[in-house]
Amino acid sequence: MKAVILLSGGLDSSTVLYQAKADRCECYALSFDYRQRHWRELESAAEIAHSAGVVEHQIVSFDLRQWGGSALTDDRLDLPSERSLAEMAVNIPITYVPARNTIFLSFAVAYAEAIGAERVYIGVNALDYSGYPDCRPDYIQAMQEVYRLGTKQGREGQAITIVTPLLDLKKTEIIQLGNRLGVPWQQTWSCYAGTEEACGVCDSCRLRLAAFAELGLTDPLPYTPPEGTDRFV
Amino acid sequence: MKAVILLSGGLDSSTVLYQAKADRCECYALSFDYRQRHWRELESAAEIAHSAGVVEHQIVSFDLRQWGGSALTDDRLDLPSERSLAEMAVNIPITYVPARNTIFLSFAVAYAEAIGAERVYIGVNALDYSGYPDCRPDYIQAMQEVYRLGTKQGREGQAITIVTPLLDLKKTEIIQLGNRLGVPWQQTWSCYAGTEEACGVCDSCRLRLAAFAELGLTDPLPYTPPEGTDRFV
Repeated sequence: MKAVILLSGGLDSSTVLYQAKADRCECYALSFDYRQRHWRELESAAEIAHSAGVVEHQIVSFDLRQWGGSALTDDRLDLPSERSLAEMAVNIPITYVPARNTIFLSFAVAYAEAIGAERVYIGVNALDYSGYPDCRPDYIQAMQEVYRLGTKQGREGQAITIVTPLLDLKKTEIIQLGNRLGVPWQQTWSCYAGTEEACGVCDSCRLRLAAFAELGLTDPLPYTPPEGTDRFV
Repeated sequence: MKAVILLSGGLDSSTVLYQAKADRCECYALSFDYRQRHWRELESAAEIAHSAGVVEHQIVSFDLRQWGGSALTDDRLDLPSERSLAEMAVNIPITYVPARNTIFLSFAVAYAEAIGAERVYIGVNALDYSGYPDCRPDYIQAMQEVYRLGTKQGREGQAITIVTPLLDLKKTEIIQLGNRLGVPWQQTWSCYAGTEEACGVCDSCRLRLAAFAELGLTDPLPYTPPEGTDRFV
C-alpha cells in the first residue's frame, strides 16, 4: 500500500515515517520549503528520507513569508524561549503559522491522489502541542471529510485516510516509540533557530530535551546554546 | 470588512471579485502560479485586480507539475475539446487537478488569518462544473469546518466565512450578474490553452461561448481557433 508521509525532519514526523515503514507501506515523503527560518530541518528531512529508504521524496516550495503572521516566517519577531512548558500546552504561541497544517495536508492529498496512495501520515500531537488549533482531533476529522468530498478517489468511495500515530502520545512516549522503531535521532532536527547546531533554548528544543531527560536518555543531537546562555531546560 | 478573493482571472472569479466589491469589502486578491499550461490567466488576473481597485494582489507560486495527474499541468496529455456539454456536467474530466481547490482555499485561509479578513470568496459553481468534486456544496461545507477548527480566529469564535456567490448559478446567469456588476469581460481569460488568444475549442472556451450565445450576446474577448478548426461551439 502506498502512503504519503508529511516529513518535516523533526523528531515527530521522523517517527511517523518509521511507523509507516513498520506498517508495510511504500513510503512517499513530502516536505515543504516555505521559507521557514529553520531551513536546516529540510536537510534533516532529506537525510531521514534516505535512511528510511523511501520510494520518493518530494519537496514543494512556496513562500509563506508573503504575508507574515508568525515568528517562524518573520525574522523581525523574536522566537519564544522563556515560556514554561505548562504555558506552551495551553496558549497558541507566536510560532503558530496560520493554516500551516491545512496547507500541508492539502498538498499531501493532491500528491496521494496523483500517485494512487491510500494513506497520508502526519505527526500531529494533541498533547504537547495543544496550543495549536490544527493539531487537534476534531480538526483532523474535519480535514478527513475534505479528503473524502474534495477528491475523485473520495467521491468514488476510496477516500484517502489520514493516519495520526502520535495524536494521543506524550513526547516521552513518542521517543519510546521511535526507539523501538529505530529512528536515527541524530539526523532529526527540532530547533526553531536556523543555526548550524540546535540552540537548546527555544520552545521546541526544550520540549525535546525535557522528554529525553525525563526518560533518563541522552539526545544524541549536538546542541550549541547561543552566547550568554548556560542552561538548556 | 476585509475579504480575500480567489482570482484566477477567469470569467467566474472576476465576477466574484466584482461581487465582493459590491458587498463593500476591502478586497485582497489571491492568485496562483502553479505552472498551469494556461499561464496567460495570471496576466488577466493582474489586469482585473487592477481594474477592480483591490488593496493588494498576492500571487503564490508552487509547482503542481511535480507529480502530474492532470491535463492542466501535464503537457503530455491532450486537452479535451470534443466532449458534449452534457458530458462535461457529469464526468470528472481530465482537466481535474487533484485537490486544487483544497490547496487554493488553504492558502486563502492562511492569508485571511494573517491580514485579519472575515471572508474568503471563491467562484465555485456546482452546476456547470458538477464533474469536479471540489466544486460541490458539501465539499465547501467541509472546508468551512476546516476553517473553523484549523485557525486561531475560528477557535476564538470568529471563523472566516467562505462565500460562494456563483454556487447555484448557470453560466448564463453568471454572465448576467457580471454585466450588472460591470465586469470587463475582455480582460478575463477562460481558455485552457496557453496561446496568445483564446482557442475557442477547449471545454472552457466552449462553455463560455455557448453561454454568451444563449443570451444573444457577443463575448468581447478575441478568439483564434487552432489551424484546421473552423467552428467554435
